[in-house]
Amino acid sequence: MKVLLRDNSYDIIFASLSEIRNYIDIPAKTKILILSSPKIAKLYYPKLIASFKKDCHTFLYNLPPGEKTKTLTSVEKVYTFLIQNNFSRNDLIIALGGGVIGDLAGFIAATYLRGINYLQAPTTLLAQVDSAVAGKTGVNHPLGKNLIGACYQPRLVLIDKTTLSTLPQTELRSGLAEVIKYALIKDHRFFKQLEDDLTISNKMIAKCCLLKARIVQKDEKENNLRIILNFGHTIAHMLEAYTGYKRFFHGEAVALGMLAAAYISMKRNQLSAQDYQRIKKLITRANLPVKIDFKINFQRAKKIMLHDKKVKTNKLHFVLLRRIGDTSIANDIPWELVQDSLQNLK
Amino acid sequence: MKVLLRDNSYDIIFASLSEIRNYIDIPAKTKILILSSPKIAKLYYPKLIASFKKDCHTFLYNLPPGEKTKTLTSVEKVYTFLIQNNFSRNDLIIALGGGVIGDLAGFIAATYLRGINYLQAPTTLLAQVDSAVAGKTGVNHPLGKNLIGACYQPRLVLIDKTTLSTLPQTELRSGLAEVIKYALIKDHRFFKQLEDDLTISNKMIAKCCLLKARIVQKDEKENNLRIILNFGHTIAHMLEAYTGYKRFFHGEAVALGMLAAAYISMKRNQLSAQDYQRIKKLITRANLPVKIDFKINFQRAKKIMLHDKKVKTNKLHFVLLRRIGDTSIANDIPWELVQDSLQNLK
Repeated sequence: MKVLLRDNSYDIIFASLSEIRNYIDIPAKTKILILSSPKIAKLYYPKLIASFKKDCHTFLYNLPPGEKTKTLTSVEKVYTFLIQNNFSRNDLIIALGGGVIGDLAGFIAATYLRGINYLQAPTTLLAQVDSAVAGKTGVNHPLGKNLIGACYQPRLVLIDKTTLSTLPQTELRSGLAEVIKYALIKDHRFFKQLEDDLTISNKMIAKCCLLKARIVQKDEKENNLRIILNFGHTIAHMLEAYTGYKRFFHGEAVALGMLAAAYISMKRNQLSAQDYQRIKKLITRANLPVKIDFKINFQRAKKIMLHDKKVKTNKLHFVLLRRIGDTSIANDIPWELVQDSLQNLK
Repeated sequence: MKVLLRDNSYDIIFASLSEIRNYIDIPAKTKILILSSPKIAKLYYPKLIASFKKDCHTFLYNLPPGEKTKTLTSVEKVYTFLIQNNFSRNDLIIALGGGVIGDLAGFIAATYLRGINYLQAPTTLLAQVDSAVAGKTGVNHPLGKNLIGACYQPRLVLIDKTTLSTLPQTELRSGLAEVIKYALIKDHRFFKQLEDDLTISNKMIAKCCLLKARIVQKDEKENNLRIILNFGHTIAHMLEAYTGYKRFFHGEAVALGMLAAAYISMKRNQLSAQDYQRIKKLITRANLPVKIDFKINFQRAKKIMLHDKKVKTNKLHFVLLRRIGDTSIANDIPWELVQDSLQNLK
């Protein structure tokens, strides 16, 4: 499968990590930095470098797992490592891990010596269906997530589904939330397929990549169309912030956010009650939450949402559903309706 | 004059700073950050914002002048300022100053929210003929200059030659060294024009921009052709490092480096003795140095050059002249010949 992003095109390949060399032309003596985290590296680093170690120089740089590692401080440490090991513009970075490692590696690749080659080898379902595609790179700023970043494309994304076998169930579910999101915003037929079979497959991952690529191609700079990728995320971000990023996996918050957005869509007479029930049922079948199991202080929730960077003036901006597979954008949602949708999650 | 850089094109306009609004379509209420340094801002900020202040929000952020300000620490401070003032992807950054401010502003623009618009308003001759063109952006790393950067183009470069009237003579001479460099590497006719008249003019600046653009267009990613822009810089960098970046203005070191490279070219029977003398004469007429007025420890000089990032193995890499206006690349220059060229500068 080939994803074309204007003049920057790259392949998404479904294959074993050990076969990566077959898909990219890397001359002998190339230096390769594998950016990863300790657990992932222990499982997959040997497999990934198998085809390189005979004639290339491979280096492993592990960063602690989790969002807190996605800072300019981590970036600077890796710059230093690259410089000390004389990495040149012809060398290579490979991201081996989830979205955090992918975003970091992409940003480092975009900004080291004004850009060096990099590959993505995403090992989580979330990264495979989402962050691997679209040239998103970036780190967090103390004042907000993902505010620092560059537009930069990997040379190749290699998806090895077997890496999912070691992934905790919670992480798999988290990825499934994004899978459901793609179906909801763009493809009713895909949604029906998911209703028939929620088993994770290369075909399912490929479908998500394709849907995302289609959206991103039309709007590489995130101006208009791309906004629909935020479906479910307005409330998800609030829930994450509300709980100090500790209570929910991202996909769990997204599942709740999607259900709330579907509820608002229904209350605005856009989405049928039957479709709302189908969505709720599929989220339930994916073992994702459909209830918030703690008491929400609505005043605090409102305050968080109105300070969110996506909010202009005092009206709330939402991606809604016209029907399953089609969206509309609303920027006039009154807080009362949002509160109603949260109430419904109890 | 329009400079085309593959799919990222931008205009270079020769006009007054106060007319900048005429050359770019900026909607009302756009936030504009002017990145500058105190002295420059005092002289030109009011003029630059004259056409914006009626309906846009202008902000001034001053950084200390000089190379030492070109760090990720400065970048982070500006990120914080942008975030605190809610700059969005539709807002704008303008670099008002020399190369340091331009490089910093470009890097910040490339990496804030994955890229926002920026304009260059270079106020030094060096920046006008050199750093303003080519989408070079970047900062220094404690281990080396310009190692961090991104490829990113400004929307517009506005050159107001009147800003040069307040520039110290040393800085003007420094810029002239680069002007002479463009003539030497690419344009014999331009060199003859400079022999006739060294007065700084828009035509002279435009010619340099055009020559640089032509080189960069053929090699946007700095692989081969672009290397000729380093003419004179191999020895210049050594001289700067040797003297702790304190003794020479960059252009002065470049003048000495060009003369040394011309000497090596002559000794390799590429360049005629007459052409060597013409070069020396023009550099002298520009009030640039043709002598090193201190004792060089050749062992130390050699050590610095062999550690330079551009050196592979133990042979020295040089851009040489075939004749005035044409270059050749050599990667087999023995140290003895380099030493000879330095001896000749005494």
